[in-house]
Parts: sequence; C-alpha cells; structure tokens
Amino acid sequence: MRVGFLGLGGMGSAMAKRLLGAGHELLVWNRSADKADALREHGAAVAPSVKAACEADVVISMLADDRALEAVSDDILENLDGVHCSMSTTSVALSERLTAAHAERAATSSPRQRFVAAPVFGRPDAARAGKLFIVAAGQESALDACAPLFDVMGQRTFRLSERPRDANLVKLSGNFLLANVIEALGEVVALVEKAGVDKREALAIFNGTLFDATAYHTYGKLIVDERWQPAGFTAALGLKDVRLTLAAAEALEVPLPLASLLRDRLLRLLASGGAELDWAALARLAAEDAGRR
Amino acid sequence: MRVGFLGLGGMGSAMAKRLLGAGHELLVWNRSADKADALREHGAAVAPSVKAACEADVVISMLADDRALEAVSDDILENLDGVHCSMSTTSVALSERLTAAHAERAATSSPRQRFVAAPVFGRPDAARAGKLFIVAAGQESALDACAPLFDVMGQRTFRLSERPRDANLVKLSGNFLLANVIEALGEVVALVEKAGVDKREALAIFNGTLFDATAYHTYGKLIVDERWQPAGFTAALGLKDVRLTLAAAEALEVPLPLASLLRDRLLRLLASGGAELDWAALARLAAEDAGRR
Amino acid sequence: MRVGFLGLGGMGSAMAKRLLGAGHELLVWNRSADKADALREHGAAVAPSVKAACEADVVISMLADDRALEAVSDDILENLDGVHCSMSTTSVALSERLTAAHAERAATSSPRQRFVAAPVFGRPDAARAGKLFIVAAGQESALDACAPLFDVMGQRTFRLSERPRDANLVKLSGNFLLANVIEALGEVVALVEKAGVDKREALAIFNGTLFDATAYHTYGKLIVDERWQPAGFTAALGLKDVRLTLAAAEALEVPLPLASLLRDRLLRLLASGGAELDWAALARLAAEDAGRR
Amino acid sequence: MRVGFLGLGGMGSAMAKRLLGAGHELLVWNRSADKADALREHGAAVAPSVKAACEADVVISMLADDRALEAVSDDILENLDGVHCSMSTTSVALSERLTAAHAERAATSSPRQRFVAAPVFGRPDAARAGKLFIVAAGQESALDACAPLFDVMGQRTFRLSERPRDANLVKLSGNFLLANVIEALGEVVALVEKAGVDKREALAIFNGTLFDATAYHTYGKLIVDERWQPAGFTAALGLKDVRLTLAAAEALEVPLPLASLLRDRLLRLLASGGAELDWAALARLAAEDAGRR
Repeated sequence: MRVGFLGLGGMGSAMAKRLLGAGHELLVWNRSADKADALREHGAAVAPSVKAACEADVVISMLADDRALEAVSDDILENLDGVHCSMSTTSVALSERLTAAHAERAATSSPRQRFVAAPVFGRPDAARAGKLFIVAAGQESALDACAPLFDVMGQRTFRLSERPRDANLVKLSGNFLLANVIEALGEVVALVEKAGVDKREALAIFNGTLFDATAYHTYGKLIVDERWQPAGFTAALGLKDVRLTLAAAEALEVPLPLASLLRDRLLRLLASGGAELDWAALARLAAEDAGRR
Repeated sequence: MRVGFLGLGGMGSAMAKRLLGAGHELLVWNRSADKADALREHGAAVAPSVKAACEADVVISMLADDRALEAVSDDILENLDGVHCSMSTTSVALSERLTAAHAERAATSSPRQRFVAAPVFGRPDAARAGKLFIVAAGQESALDACAPLFDVMGQRTFRLSERPRDANLVKLSGNFLLANVIEALGEVVALVEKAGVDKREALAIFNGTLFDATAYHTYGKLIVDERWQPAGFTAALGLKDVRLTLAAAEALEVPLPLASLLRDRLLRLLASGGAELDWAALARLAAEDAGRR
Repeated sequence: MRVGFLGLGGMGSAMAKRLLGAGHELLVWNRSADKADALREHGAAVAPSVKAACEADVVISMLADDRALEAVSDDILENLDGVHCSMSTTSVALSERLTAAHAERAATSSPRQRFVAAPVFGRPDAARAGKLFIVAAGQESALDACAPLFDVMGQRTFRLSERPRDANLVKLSGNFLLANVIEALGEVVALVEKAGVDKREALAIFNGTLFDATAYHTYGKLIVDERWQPAGFTAALGLKDVRLTLAAAEALEVPLPLASLLRDRLLRLLASGGAELDWAALARLAAEDAGRR
Repeated sequence: MRVGFLGLGGMGSAMAKRLLGAGHELLVWNRSADKADALREHGAAVAPSVKAACEADVVISMLADDRALEAVSDDILENLDGVHCSMSTTSVALSERLTAAHAERAATSSPRQRFVAAPVFGRPDAARAGKLFIVAAGQESALDACAPLFDVMGQRTFRLSERPRDANLVKLSGNFLLANVIEALGEVVALVEKAGVDKREALAIFNGTLFDATAYHTYGKLIVDERWQPAGFTAALGLKDVRLTLAAAEALEVPLPLASLLRDRLLRLLASGGAELDWAALARLAAEDAGRR
C-alpha cells in the first residue's frame, strides 16, 4: 500500500521500518529532515512536504503532541484523499476537532477522506518488534483500510468504536493506569526497602502472584534497578499524558484523584530536573520522601 | 501431621478442609463453636479450648485481626511446644511482639516453640482450591516444618526471610497494591463510562495489553458488573489492612500518599454503610463523584 | 475622569455605580445590552460597542473569564489611547499576552496605551460598599492614572509591581487560600458535628482565637448555616480560579497538592449539579463523605 | 488555691509560673526532677511523687502525650479528691477513658473527683504572658473550680460542653486548621517566589485582606523568613496532633483528606531529619517540590 508517514522519532522510525519491511511503499516526512533521510536506506521515499506525503491511500501521523499534529493537520485536510490515521497520544479534544474537520472535507471535496485514531501501547523495543498493541476507532471502512498496516506494526489491534476520540480516551486511561502502577510500586519499594526487606524478593512475590502483568514486570524491574536512563518514555511525556487525561476528565466533569496525585508527582520530578528521565523515576520521589538522599 | 487450627471463618474453614483432605490430623477451634462443629464431618477433632488445640506439632491461626490473635496468643505461648504459624493478615508490630515472645519461651521453657508468619494472597475460592499464594518468613527449620501444610493449601510458597514480620509487611504491601488497582480501575471506568465508551471493551483492552494480571481481571470484572455482594473481601477488612500498612509505614517514617488516599476512600465507603460490601465497591465512589446516583 | 467600563455582572455593576456615585463620567458596555441600560438611571452613558467605550482615559474590564476578555481585547488594543485596567480574575498567561500586546501598540501607534491588572478581593456586597481590596500591578504612571478610581471602589489598594501578571498570580493565590479555608472548615465541621459537638460553638472558638479573619468568619457562617444560595461566588467560578492557579503553577513547574485536591472537590460538586451554588458548598461534600445524606 | 502541677516543659513551666505569680500554692512534679527544682525560686513546692502532688484541690497535667498522661493517671485516680484538669493535647479516646474512670472513682470512693479537659491554643510566649486561649469541657462545678486558674493562664476561656473529650476534639481540629494554614501558605509562597513576585509583599496582601488572623501572621512570617528554629511547636508534635485528629475521625468514620495530606507531609519532614524543626518547616517541602534545593 502507498503510505505517507509523518513523524520519525523513536517510535515513528521503528514503526515505519516495520511497514517498509513488509513491502509497503512509504513517503516519509519529518520536521527535521535528517531523520527522514535515515530511512532512505530502508527503502523509503522522502517527501519534501506534508502535502507531498499526502499522495497516499493512508497517511499515518506519529507526532510528539497536539501542537505538532495541529501544525500539519491543515495540510493533511487540504491534500489528502484517503485515511488520516493518527497513532500518537493526543488529546480527546483534538481528535474530536479533526474528526469533524475530516468529515466536512469528505462531505464537500474529498469523498474518501476520513479520520482514524489508533494510538498504541508499547515502548520503542515493542515497536521495532512489531509487538505494539493498537487501539483503533473510526469508521469501519477506514479501519479496514488500515488493517494491513496495523497487522505489521502490532501484535493485536482492538477495534473500539466508530468514534475516533474513544481510542484516545482509552489510550490516555491506559497511560494513567501505567503511571499509577509506577507510583504504587515506587511507594511499596520505598517501604519494604526502608524496612530492610529485599526489594527484589518482594517484587518477585508481587510479580509471581496477583500482579503478573507486563506493567508490573517492566516498571518493577526499572524501579528496583533504579535505572532511569535511557528513558523508554520520559517524565515530560508522562506529564503530558496525565495532563491530557485530566483535561478530558475535566471536560466531562469527572474527578480523578489518583491522576491529580500523579500530576503533582510528575511536576515535582520535572522541577527537580527529571524531565528527560524515564517516568519510572517517579519512584525516586517516594524514596526521597522516606528519607533517602 | 498433627495440626491445631484456630479460626474458621470463610478462609480458615476452606484451608482446614484442604489439610483434612490431604490426611492431616486436625484439632480445630473457633471462638463460636458452631463453625468448629461443622468441620467434624470432614474428619476434624474439635478442640474445646485453645490450649487443647496446642497439643500439636504446628498450630495455624487464621484469625480476623490483631485483637483476635492477641486474645489467643497467651494460651499458645504457654501451651505450645511446636510452631505457631500465623496465616492471617496482622500488623507488623504484633508480629514483632509475637516473634520476641516465642523466642523467649523457646529460650526458657519450650525449646521447640517458634513463630512463623505466613499470610496468604487469595480469596475464599482460591483457598478451597488450594490455590493460595503463601508468603512465609521465620526460622528455616520452622518453615521446613510447615512446608507440607503450605503445599496443600497453596499453589506456591515464597520463603522471604528469617524475620516473620517481613512476611506481614509484604502481604500488607500486596493488599495496598490491590486496593490501588481497584481505585485506579474505578476511576478509569467512571471516566470512560461517562464518555460513552463501552466499559467492558475498555477493560478488555487493558486486560489484553499491559494489565493482564489476576488483580486486573478479578477486580475489573467486579467493577464493570457492579457486583459488590457477596463480598470476597469486605471494605471493612480492606480498611483494616490499609490502616495496618499506614501504621507500619508511619513507624518507619515512610509517607505513602496513595495509601492515604485509599484510606480516605474506604472510610467514606464505610460511612455510607458499605462496610460489608466487597472492597471493589470503592469504584462506586468514583462513579458517584462523576455525578452518577 | 472619563471611564469606559466593560462587563456589568454582579461585581461590575456594583463597581460602576461606585464610580458614577463619585462623579466619574462612565461609558458602559455589556455583551447583553439590558444590563448596560439598567445603569442609565445612575447616570451612565451606554456605549454601543467596545470601540465606543474606548473613547476614555481609562477602560476598566470586569469580564467573566479569559474568553470574555479575549473577545474584546482586539477592539481595545485597536481603539484605546489610554489605560486598560483589567479587574477581573483572569489567567496569568493572558495577562502576559495583553501586557506585551499593549506595549507593542504603545511603541507603534498609541503612545499612551498601557495595561494594568488590578484584580479585587471581595464579594458583591463589598463592591457595593466600595470596600474591595485591590491588587494592582503595572507601570507606575498607569497605576497613578487609575488611583482615583481605585480609591472609590476599594478600601485599600496594594501596588505590587510593574509586571501586571504578578497581580493576577497573587489574586489567584488568594482565591486558592480561600478555597482551602472552605475545605478545611468543611472537614472540621463535618467532624465535630458527627461527634455531637455544637458546630456553632466550635466555629466561635476558631473565630475567637487564631482564626479571627474575614475568610473564616464569612465562610464559617455559610458552612454552619448550610446556606449555599444565593451564591456570592459560584462553585463554577471557584473551579475556574483553581484551574487558573494550577495552570500558572504548572507553567512554572510548581506542584500544589492542596490545589489539586480542591480542583477534584469542585469538579465533584459540579458533577453533582452544584455549579451555581456558592463554593462554600464544598463543605457539603465533607459532610456527605462522613455519611450524611 | 492549692494546685498540683504535673509536667514542666516549655508550656507547663510558663503556665505554672503564671499561677505562682497570682499567689496560688503550687505542688509541682516533673518526670525529670531538675525542671521541678527550677520552679522552687518562683515559690513552688516540689512534690516527690505524683501522689504527693495530688494533695490539692485541682491537679493540672500538662504532659507531652497520651503515654505520659497514662503513666500518671492511675496515681491521680487513686489519690486525688478534687479535679484533674488535663491541659495538654491528648487523644479523644484517652479523654473518654479518663472521664469514665474518674466518674467511677467519684461514685465509689472519692466523691469530689472529676475530670476536666482544658487544652490550650498558644505557643510558649503566649503562655508566659497569660495570653492562652483555653477550651474547657467537663461538669459545670468542676469548670467553676478551675475558673480562677484559667483566668490567670489565659486571655479567654471557652466553656464548650459537659463532655471533656469535646474540648480535645475541638483543640485537635484547631491544630489541624493550623497545619493546613502552614501548608497552604507554604504552597503559595513557593509559587509566588518561583514566579519572581516578592513573597513579603504577597504575604502583606493576604494578611491585609481576608487573612488578617494570628495564624496567618505568625506562620506567614516564619515561612517567608524561613525560620524553622528554635521551634515554637515541633514537627514531631505536629505529626502527633494530626495523627490524633485522624484517629478521632476514623473512630467516627469521617474522612479528612486534608489531614491525610498533612500527615504525609509531616512524615516526610520527619524522615528528612526535621522532627525538631518548627512545623512551619512544612513550607520547605513545597519549596523543594518546586525545585529549590
């Protein structure tokens, strides 16, 4: 399939390579061109502009945040006659605006233009291995169009509903659950460690009983190893996602006390210079609060 | 083996039956005698007193709380010449006191007297099936003596350390992690539901991706089904355990902001008449806060 | 002085009448014209547009929120050759943007154009009595120009600094302190009331000892009387201000755990239909959590 | 009047001197005798035992905590035929137990024995000046008996009810309100300071408007001056009182989210070595969280 791909950071590059490896024709674009050039040797064509990347059946965007997506969305709306599949974690509100904008274009000028939100669970290593989990929402035909691409990038795709923003909300909720796991493990590790209990033993017990899930294995290990770098997912991005969760919840008048607590912790981590650490470093705060320096 | 068994509530009865089924000789005792009588048909001998139940190699206690254990501990200390294995969730401080008291008896009058803490993870159905997870700590020889019993009651035993209270602390920490899972799922379900997203679909995504653990399956299902009764583990007991976690942490000067939040939520659940509901009913509060009545 | 006055809600009308009463010439404007008409009998001239109201030495805006102020700010920037004095509680970020925009106009086309932020403490009754507290920041000459107006509207003006947004930040901080007083009194009243202690006696003790301040008298009385209507300041506005405080703090990377807690409480109050109640109704939540229905 | 006085720390000594200065006959006792000796020159007689100090019409206790009061309460119960007036901040539960115990003694052996709780608001300088606020509860005749003593030690006495523990609850609530003021001012000062606003100016505005109360003046000044030593009231005592507030509230099933937050903050302050700092040092944590080292 002919695919435009916008945004070639750690996640985007890995996903683009998966698509290239499966034989898809890629038009890649990145704000800083060097990252696009690096994909040439993997067989990608470099698009000189967002407009040029829109000469495709599907355009995938994997951009850092709302602002980055907004910066390209007019170009996509004006030039695409296909599916825009947004796979990064963006706000519910932006997803609603883009859904409406694409529907309007489809009704007036570009009949095949549709918007799909398909955010993913998984860190860069999962992206490289094609083991992402993809949460997709949008019109059925649009999801069908994306399906062959999802199959290459992910180990499983969940089709959630016809309303794209639902996928964003579930993705944000998942990240909120993850941040919560980090904080909870951080507090527990601070406790058992100060009590003189072997923290690895304690973690093995949690992992071996009721908490035998990827989230607890991955973050448990980072926390007991105190390995905050290199970051698989930075504290700054974590704060962004918790903030988006709180914003979506506030718009719906839903208080989320745990998310508020996590926001304060992440903000504190940033204020102490931890923006680029893995968000597992939240656990460092619990240890500090217990008196460790 | 000749085993005294004190405390025959939902968990205790199920565990005692597993031991009887495996051919162990049981002397059972319960504060209200009718529950002990019910085990006669399963082959247990009913002990008329705690003292009588102490004519055994190992005495297991599975009592409701610190107070219940303290009410029998003098009788055990004075009459046992074997291992006291405390399997209920009690305070770290009580475990420390009993460890010291048993050691003193061993040094003076009953050389074989030792204390083991072996709290369990699992609800009554797991106890019936012999599928508990057992976290055991105490002197190695004492743990060896209990091992055949643990094998019958649990699917796996973790030997943590020689210090009994370590097992209590890890068990309490595990319950704290569980309460945290309930609260987090409750908040997320309140959010997606108010957004019009199918809560079962959302849960399936979490369970199918990073949160594929018993805790998330069990409590996720209770929460989306809003099934607060019959209680597998009551809110009142949940509050007790969070309180014990906070007490242990306070003694060590370790702040646990998540545990504080959970304590307030559970207290609120009790104040609204929810003491005997399953502690999964914490999720009801998140829904209420989002405006559902 | 010739004064344009934009925004004639409960606070704005009261302040405008004070200015009229002191002999100032007022050009009043309101989005819904009927409120402007009501001031005719007090001697005001009704401006048909924001532009018309800008034919003045000072234009005071007392608009509901950022959005309302943004809706008129271009008209002010283009037409004013004097001081724009913003007296409502708006965001720090908007104040910074307007300061820069006015400075640019002053440098290019309207040399006398300057921006002053002068938010106020006080409810409508204080506004009627000219007893507001005014926190003003901006260029000294601009503050001098506003001083005669401040003297009529307020019992005291604090000149804070040359940077208008400082006044907004201090005003938001003050409202945060107020919300905190409400929550604290609400929790304490819920506690003593459930204990069977006379809540009015308890309040009298607090007010008569270390908490002999307007905030504690005003809100203490509303809370023990459970008088949530009519609202002096609505929960919806309270949430707006706590949100603006959190936004200002987040931009500076300052966690405010109390403000997060207050945000969640106010959100819950709104979700249960309390948007138009006085924000003192926060105390109702503490009573509910203690089991009162 | 003949008065026994137990407990001669900073507060107790100052109160005892006030009584001596007013001509009362004092029998003073302290666990470490040197502090009692120091009062000889002020005219006190040193009692060699608690029992000896009970040969009085009224025995005042001003002891550090529940444990210290419990350590002397049997001696008081057995030897006093008058009023035991407990003026330190102790738990609601202990007050209830002592009320019952004294009533039993009155019914059986010592007809004039009664219990009064009369905790005070004020730091040592207020005690020296006889400017304490006294919150008293107990039988009317017993309060009458204490009244001349209260008049010397305090600037005002509030007679709350006939139930002594009510006074303890209100006193604990007051300390909770105070801790809350410290935390709120700490957060606000961290915010304005990081924003580059003069923190003293900001404080002057709060103090000059809605927060013109002793609590805000006293703690505001300590916070902007960062004067954590010498402690007027230590963080360790502050934690004790917040803990007692939470315990009283838990017994009544009243969640107090603000108190939970304060408990965690105080615990963190202790864990970082701050036990003997003034509890105003809570504000240091807010500054740290904002990135200040």
